Amino acid sequence: MSQIIKHDQELMKKINKEMILNLIREKGPISRADLAKITNMSPTSISRIVTDFSELGLVKETNLTSSGVGRKAILLDTDPNSIHVISVEMDQSISKIGVVDFDGNIILKEEVTYDSHVMDWEKVVDKICNTIGGIIEQENSTESKIIGIGIGIPGIVDDKSGRVVFSPQLGWKDVGIVDYIEKRFGYKTTIDNLIKSKAIAENVYGSTKGSKRAALINFGTGVGSALIVNEEIYRGITNSAGEIGHTTIDPNGRLCDCGRIGCLQTFITEEALIQEARAFKNVYSIKEIFDSEIAGENWAINLIDRLYTYVGIAVCNVICMYNPDTVIITGKLIEERPEILDVIMKRVDDRIWAPFKNTYEIKGSNLCEKSGMLGVASLVINKYLDAEL
Amino acid sequence: MSQIIKHDQELMKKINKEMILNLIREKGPISRADLAKITNMSPTSISRIVTDFSELGLVKETNLTSSGVGRKAILLDTDPNSIHVISVEMDQSISKIGVVDFDGNIILKEEVTYDSHVMDWEKVVDKICNTIGGIIEQENSTESKIIGIGIGIPGIVDDKSGRVVFSPQLGWKDVGIVDYIEKRFGYKTTIDNLIKSKAIAENVYGSTKGSKRAALINFGTGVGSALIVNEEIYRGITNSAGEIGHTTIDPNGRLCDCGRIGCLQTFITEEALIQEARAFKNVYSIKEIFDSEIAGENWAINLIDRLYTYVGIAVCNVICMYNPDTVIITGKLIEERPEILDVIMKRVDDRIWAPFKNTYEIKGSNLCEKSGMLGVASLVINKYLDAEL
Repeated sequence: MSQIIKHDQELMKKINKEMILNLIREKGPISRADLAKITNMSPTSISRIVTDFSELGLVKETNLTSSGVGRKAILLDTDPNSIHVISVEMDQSISKIGVVDFDGNIILKEEVTYDSHVMDWEKVVDKICNTIGGIIEQENSTESKIIGIGIGIPGIVDDKSGRVVFSPQLGWKDVGIVDYIEKRFGYKTTIDNLIKSKAIAENVYGSTKGSKRAALINFGTGVGSALIVNEEIYRGITNSAGEIGHTTIDPNGRLCDCGRIGCLQTFITEEALIQEARAFKNVYSIKEIFDSEIAGENWAINLIDRLYTYVGIAVCNVICMYNPDTVIITGKLIEERPEILDVIMKRVDDRIWAPFKNTYEIKGSNLCEKSGMLGVASLVINKYLDAEL
Repeated sequence: MSQIIKHDQELMKKINKEMILNLIREKGPISRADLAKITNMSPTSISRIVTDFSELGLVKETNLTSSGVGRKAILLDTDPNSIHVISVEMDQSISKIGVVDFDGNIILKEEVTYDSHVMDWEKVVDKICNTIGGIIEQENSTESKIIGIGIGIPGIVDDKSGRVVFSPQLGWKDVGIVDYIEKRFGYKTTIDNLIKSKAIAENVYGSTKGSKRAALINFGTGVGSALIVNEEIYRGITNSAGEIGHTTIDPNGRLCDCGRIGCLQTFITEEALIQEARAFKNVYSIKEIFDSEIAGENWAINLIDRLYTYVGIAVCNVICMYNPDTVIITGKLIEERPEILDVIMKRVDDRIWAPFKNTYEIKGSNLCEKSGMLGVASLVINKYLDAEL
């Protein structure tokens, strides 16, 4: 029984520490007295916990003091530069690599390009690692501490074993990327599915903060979705939930690169659209198709109109399955042309099954192209805090 | 601060009581000493809690004693007849009404038929209530205590307000059924979506016990699905998650009774199949279509073959979205012809996207047509225990 009590005490300590740190992160600058007031904890306990944080460098005393009558109290806040994460967002031919601080600021960003369908996975990862290596060198000249590396990867990612199970975008199958990178740099490395990473970022820093059931749908080189339930990502049994791109949407449709017929993504992804457009005009990017549509070219108007129809279907199907209060639309499609959000809203509103009307809100991301990097950074920070607190 | 401690103490007491009761329900007959050993609680605490249960009638001393050396201890077990629930499973033209005891046995079952698309909702409910009234009279002559009424209803059900938002199967829109029944009988009444009720029953008594992520798909007068995450039903924001019947599965398909084109259910529900079959032969039930298929009639073979294709698609889409470890197939389709489970498994296995292979198990229900009644009964029992403990 004393074992259990001891375990419970340790757990309570940890919960209290987490609570205090979250309060400082959310409400800082804040005084020790106010922390005690909000949490109902004794000033002594607060001071003890804050000292722990200071020793880790996470929290510092600011130059500010509390207003009002009585003795002025020094206000506490997080030190954004206390811990840094090296954060990577991978896609088919480009990776964004940068440094994210404790407050969720991206303080450095570089890009690496490659052709993942031509190069071996080691070569792609080496290219990324070279840039990471350069960043680590730069970082070593500062006082900040790198706590780990986080990578968001499109496709089926086993976050537990650190392996990419299958990524159609990268052309990878069973790649042990975490082992490879940890061996090279010695830093703890965390990977996750890119769309799940984005959903986490929106929940921590972005458009779905405070939502109870939030879905994110990404339209880019692939199509995928993610669900946040009570602040946590719903992963399913093999971290593969939300793979809407390979739900069948038209049994009489086109053959997908997965070898099955009529997958949603055959109507929506950039590659599928470019491929189809080429029946009429030699285009190389979704931007060119949009430009042709704006220029009033009929083929592009038809193709984009059909794209909107399928995007509308995708969003409606996600709403039927997940019944979220918020749907965030992210990805290259909407980054390329943010004004299509209104078109999507209208299509969904016209199509949605009546009982779901007014149950959801459709939003763009206010983190935009930063969300992938912020999401994995948040995963790395949480793992670090979980181990240290 | 003392407020919080008091609140925590109350909560701990409740958690302990729940734990002990669950142990007796799971492992009974069991001795007080074994309960103390398993929970690390003191014999005094165990005795106090067990006395509370005995006073409520939930737990009784059996005639059995513990084996082994030392003083023989009397074994405890639940008293199945301590509490009874009146449980109703509604469908388009028939309702099953019965009594479920504390152990999940259906100890009485009656059926009521009606035509919900012709009769006012009050008339349908009155018909059901007349049977409930008869059952209550019978029950009053026993020593058991009716703790409430539970009703599983197809369609969008607001479990919090006790209203049926929309039920295509019943032809109901915004019906305050809980108020109506509570006024008539005075018993606390609970409603839920029928498919969610079935999923709860499978989780508590049936095929998905112990599963971490279980999906249930029901093929009957409608098509729907439900998701169980960590022993709890995933409801979404308006208790409407899992409405796969109205996901678009073929934008060039048929007009659905919801006014939209290509909903999954237009290819799968009994009514849709009968309607389509009538282009060739005047049939009145899914059984007749199956009979014609077995007799080798080509039209039926084709229709059933297409049915299996769409059932396969439905299951695959659910797996892609929810990534469950277990998929339970329920509903009239499979109750009518259990051997189709093998056909469904084969279709899904042929169609599923490669990364999902071997991540799931497809099962029939071992509760079969009892699952709806057991599921709502379990909801009623949990509410009762939550209030009493």
